[in-house]
Amino acid sequence: MRLSQLFTKTSKTVPADETARNAQLLIQAGYVYKVMAGVYAYTPLGLSVLENIKQIVREEMNAIGGQELIMTSLQRQETWETTGRWDDETVDVWFKTKLQDGTELGLAWSHEEIIVEMMKQHIHSYRDMPVQVYQFQTKLRNELRAKSGIMRGREFVMKDMYSFNVDAEQHEIFYNRSIEAYKKVYERLGLDDDTYVTFAAGGAFTEFSHEFQTICEAGEDFIYVNREKGVAVNEEVMTDENLAKLGVTRDELTKVKSAEVGNIFNFGTEKCETMGLFFTDESGKQIPVHLGSYGIGVTRLMGVIAEKMADDRGLVWPAAIAPARVHLISIGEDDEATKLYDALTQAGISVIYDDRDVRAGQKFADADLLGMPHRVVISKKTLEQNSVEYKARTQSDSELIALDKIKDLV
Amino acid sequence: MRLSQLFTKTSKTVPADETARNAQLLIQAGYVYKVMAGVYAYTPLGLSVLENIKQIVREEMNAIGGQELIMTSLQRQETWETTGRWDDETVDVWFKTKLQDGTELGLAWSHEEIIVEMMKQHIHSYRDMPVQVYQFQTKLRNELRAKSGIMRGREFVMKDMYSFNVDAEQHEIFYNRSIEAYKKVYERLGLDDDTYVTFAAGGAFTEFSHEFQTICEAGEDFIYVNREKGVAVNEEVMTDENLAKLGVTRDELTKVKSAEVGNIFNFGTEKCETMGLFFTDESGKQIPVHLGSYGIGVTRLMGVIAEKMADDRGLVWPAAIAPARVHLISIGEDDEATKLYDALTQAGISVIYDDRDVRAGQKFADADLLGMPHRVVISKKTLEQNSVEYKARTQSDSELIALDKIKDLV
Repeated sequence: MRLSQLFTKTSKTVPADETARNAQLLIQAGYVYKVMAGVYAYTPLGLSVLENIKQIVREEMNAIGGQELIMTSLQRQETWETTGRWDDETVDVWFKTKLQDGTELGLAWSHEEIIVEMMKQHIHSYRDMPVQVYQFQTKLRNELRAKSGIMRGREFVMKDMYSFNVDAEQHEIFYNRSIEAYKKVYERLGLDDDTYVTFAAGGAFTEFSHEFQTICEAGEDFIYVNREKGVAVNEEVMTDENLAKLGVTRDELTKVKSAEVGNIFNFGTEKCETMGLFFTDESGKQIPVHLGSYGIGVTRLMGVIAEKMADDRGLVWPAAIAPARVHLISIGEDDEATKLYDALTQAGISVIYDDRDVRAGQKFADADLLGMPHRVVISKKTLEQNSVEYKARTQSDSELIALDKIKDLV
Repeated sequence: MRLSQLFTKTSKTVPADETARNAQLLIQAGYVYKVMAGVYAYTPLGLSVLENIKQIVREEMNAIGGQELIMTSLQRQETWETTGRWDDETVDVWFKTKLQDGTELGLAWSHEEIIVEMMKQHIHSYRDMPVQVYQFQTKLRNELRAKSGIMRGREFVMKDMYSFNVDAEQHEIFYNRSIEAYKKVYERLGLDDDTYVTFAAGGAFTEFSHEFQTICEAGEDFIYVNREKGVAVNEEVMTDENLAKLGVTRDELTKVKSAEVGNIFNFGTEKCETMGLFFTDESGKQIPVHLGSYGIGVTRLMGVIAEKMADDRGLVWPAAIAPARVHLISIGEDDEATKLYDALTQAGISVIYDDRDVRAGQKFADADLLGMPHRVVISKKTLEQNSVEYKARTQSDSELIALDKIKDLV
């Protein structure tokens, strides 16, 4: 991608209405556009990061047998009334609207009820399970406050998966596989060192539920963590009895700020029983389906990565999700730079090529702000030594690398 | 994909609440799930077709320099008030909702205003143009009636592109390139023979605007078409004066039902002037930007293809967008069928493999209903001749093909 062609422009001005570092940087670098508090559009660079994150999540969900679909934003009142969750007193984040004939509709803040309803068409027998479906969906939530940039949106992208099983035992098998799949996702995103399977309150069917919490100063949660033992708990479960079960003492835990980047939840048979999703077992008996749900906040993850990895010069993207691997800068040597751009691109290496007619200082500043993993500079000086100047985004010093070696390095 | 693993089930029952053939078939075959009139979820097979169509559109938009982004559903009242389009009297398809503090919000039925507003951050000089951006966006439109299945939704996917140019001349260049790109899209979808660039009323800035209309009995429009001359007009422009300009007479035109599968529109400078999107020209003068918009109804296209190509046995997908190329049926020969499934898959050929434990008749009926381009059957009888039974979805008779030749055929 040639930077001269990209329509977004970087900005030196920190947006006055943003307190969150992720939103400040993403707006200044031209990754997102703020429509209103908690509502952001994703411009080409931002969409690229988002799609890269989605693809990693997709691959790991497919690997454990997830089937992708896409539900709708518009939801029927009747569906949500079956579980008592239409009421604004019970669910305080509904956006609601009306058809022209006055029929009230909800805008999906979650898809649990609607997916259970759909499954009544497809699950009839024990032979129809196990099955698990997932989607990448834009959720709308009427949050009272939205000050954390893309880490807590009123409109945001979530991966939500649902598992349908014949009993607790079959559920447990998939539930445990999902924990492993989630760990792979955070590992591929470079967050594994700071992301903990965190024990939280379990509800009616299980002792604990599990949140995935990433240590992050900008997060809105607190967890108590023991890095050596790899154990983390949230405040709800901080009783001596629970801690004993998990093999840690209160003294061994440190309180840290964190962001919830995923959660998995065992609904047992309660929701399917209420909504009438039953199956016939081997003996011909009607039994309610065992339901699990599994969320990953995709746009939140992008925000967490922006927050955690950025330095005072700008964004720092892990190679797995960066819009491009290489940020190529030409200083008055467009012919040679174009040749290298073509060579790298043809070798399947994605490149942002700064071919703009601006001063070198701005090019360097923008390379730092945009945050590609590898920076390569071509100038008269480097060409005299048949080289380019190379710097990883995370390094502070650059080095000369022979022109014919750069392909192997990036 | 093994059919035994796919969670959706086919149904022999025509949905009682659907009059549109596309919705009937897509529901029966398990491609979509109806949430309410005009609101459909896309299950794995349906999502696959949708993504294949999107990818074709994406490639053609990228080829003419389109930059992909994604805007938001939630919209601010102030943005739409600048052009007078917030008013429900002016725009009668708004869904509106409210923030918790009572602030009214709109749910995007279009993104023209918001994209122009965003561009104020990025377009300042004549050097910043030409630029064109596009998105695949879920639009919400509060249609009074929604009886055409996925051909007219209250929630549907559209590709909308916007061009920003310095003047009418620069605009014209891109406008004409977009017509060619649109033609390529319909050609790749197999709709080119029946899709016409149709002259429609032009508005303040141009004599004509252009719609892309596909001849389709289930469409909601009428056009007047001359197949030999390749000319089509809509009712608005059926004056003798206009027809003379287009080189046809009234007698040479046939009235046919059609579906609008795309439209392109020249806004001139009016909207940018109203909204304050100006640039500095070479002489330092402030000039309003010249705007164009370019739509393709992605879910509608899927509906049109379902309607037009289906026969009385079920769906018929063009190879370019089918969920898989091959529908493989095992009749009591699962070992050999699995070997072929693996061989085809490894050769990069996508396969739906019916490995279910159901009778042969149901497998044949489902292959027709699901509509993959190529059907391959393995049975004891075919294996005796070291062959498979092959039938294209559009053929009525099958033929024996040697096992080692089938890969080349599909």
